[in-house]
Amino acid sequence: MRIISKVLELKEYLKEQNENIGFVPTMGALHDGHISLIKKARAECKFVVVSIFVNPTQFLEGEDFDKYPSKDEADKKICQFAGVDVLFLPQVDEIYSDDEVRVVAPNVRGFVLEGATRPGHFDGVLSVVNKLFNIVNPRYAYFGKKDAQQLNLISLMVKQLFMDVEIIAVDTVRDSDGLAKSSRNIYLTPEQRVEALKISRSLSEASKMVGKRLLKSSEIKAHMKEILKPLEIGYVEVLNREFELISEVELGNSVILVEALVGETRLLDNVWL
Amino acid sequence: MRIISKVLELKEYLKEQNENIGFVPTMGALHDGHISLIKKARAECKFVVVSIFVNPTQFLEGEDFDKYPSKDEADKKICQFAGVDVLFLPQVDEIYSDDEVRVVAPNVRGFVLEGATRPGHFDGVLSVVNKLFNIVNPRYAYFGKKDAQQLNLISLMVKQLFMDVEIIAVDTVRDSDGLAKSSRNIYLTPEQRVEALKISRSLSEASKMVGKRLLKSSEIKAHMKEILKPLEIGYVEVLNREFELISEVELGNSVILVEALVGETRLLDNVWL
Repeated sequence: MRIISKVLELKEYLKEQNENIGFVPTMGALHDGHISLIKKARAECKFVVVSIFVNPTQFLEGEDFDKYPSKDEADKKICQFAGVDVLFLPQVDEIYSDDEVRVVAPNVRGFVLEGATRPGHFDGVLSVVNKLFNIVNPRYAYFGKKDAQQLNLISLMVKQLFMDVEIIAVDTVRDSDGLAKSSRNIYLTPEQRVEALKISRSLSEASKMVGKRLLKSSEIKAHMKEILKPLEIGYVEVLNREFELISEVELGNSVILVEALVGETRLLDNVWL
Repeated sequence: MRIISKVLELKEYLKEQNENIGFVPTMGALHDGHISLIKKARAECKFVVVSIFVNPTQFLEGEDFDKYPSKDEADKKICQFAGVDVLFLPQVDEIYSDDEVRVVAPNVRGFVLEGATRPGHFDGVLSVVNKLFNIVNPRYAYFGKKDAQQLNLISLMVKQLFMDVEIIAVDTVRDSDGLAKSSRNIYLTPEQRVEALKISRSLSEASKMVGKRLLKSSEIKAHMKEILKPLEIGYVEVLNREFELISEVELGNSVILVEALVGETRLLDNVWL
């Protein structure tokens, strides 16, 4: 595995590859969710690039940018074991300069759900992903379904800006008790971790309702909110795959999403039905 | 020359070309300024693509989008004579959709000069150029120095978003009496056309001052404003090539810019010193 931190060096190195590149952009603190993205890329592409870059522009004032979990050496080992060809570790001052041209999220879909409580978050995500795609020039890029709105907006960016990359959505990986893997799970105390299970449980209960053809969004949401008590709920929503609110689950075209605060930690989860 | 209006058809066709592509994006109403861009592309590249697309998002409410000059048949002839390989004529509904991811101009450099009187204009320019670059994937793209701020911001976008295209700046073409070629010159009455010559004259007088080592921006601007009277001046500024205001001309690194209203018509010109 080659470790590269300079953009130009990476571009030169990738120019020599004539293979399709599979790309997994991450913010490090790699867990089983990331590993499943890397494995899928490894299985589908001759050449795999992983980037680790804790992107400052997607954190809002007062968020956890400064304490975002980091485990550089473990991350390198994970990538090496997973057969990554290039690990790209760019520096902030090469990715960003003063007075930047930015890529911004759409006015509607970028400012609901996560975007409503974290205005500007997705502008940061789209800007850095746009840059990384232009640097790496991948044929396929892999993102987790757990960050469903991010996945939706990145797919939208690729389509609307006519970028030559295919976005591959990968299923959420969970702990054996159901908790969705997240780098931020590390923030949870043992008691909070138990409380956090209400999130995945609310979603599996929602799936059961859908299985029984109880499809009304209002009823599903009410049931989920009961289960989530006493957690502070960011949102519970039923959307179609275009990320528009729907009043009834459309089988094969729906996502049910939850954001809840467990202690200070904001956790996301969702189910695709 | 092949004429293509569908994005996918263009992408498929260009995939078959293994040559470096030279690209000249335009809004049509082609004049000698555009022709010099096309000729330069033709001289430097094996394969030349010209696009004609009157981009709605770079016009502000109340601007001349609806009456922007158009001469489709003449434009096609011009491209054919100039040896263009592909003329790309995209449709608005394929380039834009609802609720768009956008590329936006930087907060400082995007909102001075043209950007100050036309807020949002450069967001539209950058968004469409970003899309067109992703569609055409050119090695070189040609832009006129007359639209100096546009040229600066597009160069900035390419650099900051790490796009794989080289921007080539091409000298302004003028009528024999000095008026810079512009599609909007067609709006001028014969009397206004005479008045408009004050713009290029103010710039040649500025050049003379610089030739005599009178380099102070304030003195140059004062002299230019005298010459421009009684035109309504949008701005007269002295900048370095990074588009920062400077108090004294730096030889080899400066641009002096004018925007003035002649009747209802907003005209731009500049000189690179």
